[in-house]
Amino acid sequence: MPKKTSAKKSKKKTSARASKPKAAPKNAFYAQSGGVTAVINASACGVIETARKHKNKIGKVYAGRNGIIGALTEDLIDTSKESATTIRGLRHTPSGAFGSCRYKLKSLEQNRREYERLIEVFKAHNIGYFFYNGGGDSADTCLKVSQLSETMGYPIQAIHVPKTVDNDLPITDNCPGFGSVAKYIAVSTREASFDVASMAKTSTKVFIVEVMGRHAGWIAAAGGLASTDDTPIPTIILFPEVQFDQKKFLARVDEMVKKHGYCTVVVSEGVHWPDGRFLADTGLKDAFGHAQLGGAATVIAGMIQSELKLKNHWAVADYLQRAARHIASKADVDMAYAMGKAAVEFALKGHNSVMPTIDRVSNKPFKWKVGMASLSKVANVEKMMPNDFITKDGFGITKKCRDYMEPLIKGEDYPPYKDGMPQYVRIKGVAVPKKLKGKFEL
Amino acid sequence: MPKKTSAKKSKKKTSARASKPKAAPKNAFYAQSGGVTAVINASACGVIETARKHKNKIGKVYAGRNGIIGALTEDLIDTSKESATTIRGLRHTPSGAFGSCRYKLKSLEQNRREYERLIEVFKAHNIGYFFYNGGGDSADTCLKVSQLSETMGYPIQAIHVPKTVDNDLPITDNCPGFGSVAKYIAVSTREASFDVASMAKTSTKVFIVEVMGRHAGWIAAAGGLASTDDTPIPTIILFPEVQFDQKKFLARVDEMVKKHGYCTVVVSEGVHWPDGRFLADTGLKDAFGHAQLGGAATVIAGMIQSELKLKNHWAVADYLQRAARHIASKADVDMAYAMGKAAVEFALKGHNSVMPTIDRVSNKPFKWKVGMASLSKVANVEKMMPNDFITKDGFGITKKCRDYMEPLIKGEDYPPYKDGMPQYVRIKGVAVPKKLKGKFEL
Repeated sequence: MPKKTSAKKSKKKTSARASKPKAAPKNAFYAQSGGVTAVINASACGVIETARKHKNKIGKVYAGRNGIIGALTEDLIDTSKESATTIRGLRHTPSGAFGSCRYKLKSLEQNRREYERLIEVFKAHNIGYFFYNGGGDSADTCLKVSQLSETMGYPIQAIHVPKTVDNDLPITDNCPGFGSVAKYIAVSTREASFDVASMAKTSTKVFIVEVMGRHAGWIAAAGGLASTDDTPIPTIILFPEVQFDQKKFLARVDEMVKKHGYCTVVVSEGVHWPDGRFLADTGLKDAFGHAQLGGAATVIAGMIQSELKLKNHWAVADYLQRAARHIASKADVDMAYAMGKAAVEFALKGHNSVMPTIDRVSNKPFKWKVGMASLSKVANVEKMMPNDFITKDGFGITKKCRDYMEPLIKGEDYPPYKDGMPQYVRIKGVAVPKKLKGKFEL
Repeated sequence: MPKKTSAKKSKKKTSARASKPKAAPKNAFYAQSGGVTAVINASACGVIETARKHKNKIGKVYAGRNGIIGALTEDLIDTSKESATTIRGLRHTPSGAFGSCRYKLKSLEQNRREYERLIEVFKAHNIGYFFYNGGGDSADTCLKVSQLSETMGYPIQAIHVPKTVDNDLPITDNCPGFGSVAKYIAVSTREASFDVASMAKTSTKVFIVEVMGRHAGWIAAAGGLASTDDTPIPTIILFPEVQFDQKKFLARVDEMVKKHGYCTVVVSEGVHWPDGRFLADTGLKDAFGHAQLGGAATVIAGMIQSELKLKNHWAVADYLQRAARHIASKADVDMAYAMGKAAVEFALKGHNSVMPTIDRVSNKPFKWKVGMASLSKVANVEKMMPNDFITKDGFGITKKCRDYMEPLIKGEDYPPYKDGMPQYVRIKGVAVPKKLKGKFEL
């Protein structure tokens, strides 16, 4: 069970001694971590709007400018300076409004100084709540902050808010951000397939779209949603979970083009050769030491051209897919907001080292409720596609996968438009005056 | 002035001799040509719905299966077998529902046989109206069919319906298809730029998106709409009209990243080196003899990486951009429909060898009316971006360009959704029984 902390106890105390001068309520810290999504700001909106309803318990919400780096460098944004309209606008604004970062804190043994610095900054700004919005790596950071703050005598309630387009966090039914990227890929794959179908007689026969997903094929699987019983589309999905078999793949393309006149290939950036090398390996690595990918589509296009002599076109969706707030899934937006809201409510109830989760109750109609997971069970665990979500031939999704995914792309949640363009908000980003002396070098 | 043909005259005759048995009204032929768009089916909808209202003058509308090839091979689709719901659904369905093709008829001198065959097929099926929905090449075909049919003693009223995502037809203010691809590029560029801005502190500094446009930079220019006075975005546009200057370009990227922390590059597939070679030249050619492009983004990404050492990401929108009916411009959909409707109305009024055009009346509010252009002035003329639409430095759009383009992306026209997916229609495509003997080899 998650442990109850001082927040709940102090509530009892203050209500019992109402006549005495109250201590200023603790402030909260919120930060966005890792690759941003179409709905991470909806979670921020959930955190801030909910905190604003409880000003007796949560003072101000300070956001880290550019994620956790903002905490380390004491570069905090005072969200109380943002209007209610701006905060409400975050719900329909893609990207990370406060800035995010790819900066993984090292282990406690390797760099205790960083964790201690975080707690010093939190202490200096009377921060008692730490809301960290990210994936598996940030869940780990969140857990460590909670543990070390206790050791250092300045206990902080650390709550992780789930976010990843990759849908790879454990325990929670899905990760906010995924439903929207899935909807984008499903819709785009359907649209481009219609396009190719109408041109295939004399022109392009194979359309290839490369999608994100280094290790887990969740996003690629979303391409399978383009095809339904009433709108069948010949689709081949290349998952990172399935070792790439060039001969089998080309045979399938050839077969589909002969049968249907065209086909669409959805290829994950993480697809790899039998020896483990990514099809798209560029040799570059990102800050987390992951290989920087991009280009699997061109490799696939090249082999279809040279081996099958079939005219093809390819697209690489890259950031367009995870930023596509204009076609966000309403279910996803709702869940993203709910996770932010639940994080604050958990904190108010005294929980610590936990993450709100989405617990599915039923598929049709899609019902879910907010659950809770201990961070020790979330940190650094990567959830892969279950084997029974991929068809036996390795090129498609099963009914089980479809039943799981369809509810996540349900509903539209269009942003407001002005002169044809979506009206996304930008924060003022007023800095909180620094209290600590000296500069912290990253 | 466009010449009046038998259609108008026969109207007078029939009304004057109402007691005599009427000749069966002529049928119409409709075909889609070249690369399809998000709204070409809206034009088809305009043609068919309008024709259905005038059954006394237009019998049936037969569509060419896979464009003009359907006429040559006598493979006609009887659109009267499609329900009113299906035809209405074409308005919100991307791609070419009847099939399109890249098949350019040779000149009369080179292949008179093809034109004669068209007229034989039209005669066999009592077709008196030829509606051809395409770009500059098909305007030329349309004109020739009209001319030759007159010579062959079976006069056909040929009306061209404008369509190109490239916006390169003359006389008309804009081409249906362009407004929607422009909206997609403007919205996607804004969204991806928000994404990069939030990550730039520790990760990607430059985002590159490659867009369509072989010779004319209209689509690339739409990337400039992402940035507005209330939402400025550091953007560099690389137009095919401007000779690529690597040194100047890299200096600009460097300057923008230093000033804003990030920047976005919108690169047209048609950008070329000083010696005329496309950045993306693959050496392949399409059926029209045009170089098949794709990959300018990777070339740009490579030089930013190696020369400036700036982390970057790139996307290639390819078919996603022209098929993106989910984010179609309402203005564009309305104009596409209106062009189809006007084509039929022109035919009913006896016009021949003409194309309905969009004549702009005012920018704010955007007002336009249907005009008419003679095909001899449209065929094979390519409208380039005016010089004063591109900023002097060659990297951006002027106010004049913005004033022209903004009205074209205005308004949203969402398709209906079911279970999270847009409900695009497919036709039954019932074939008209063949009447001619023998097979025609393409």
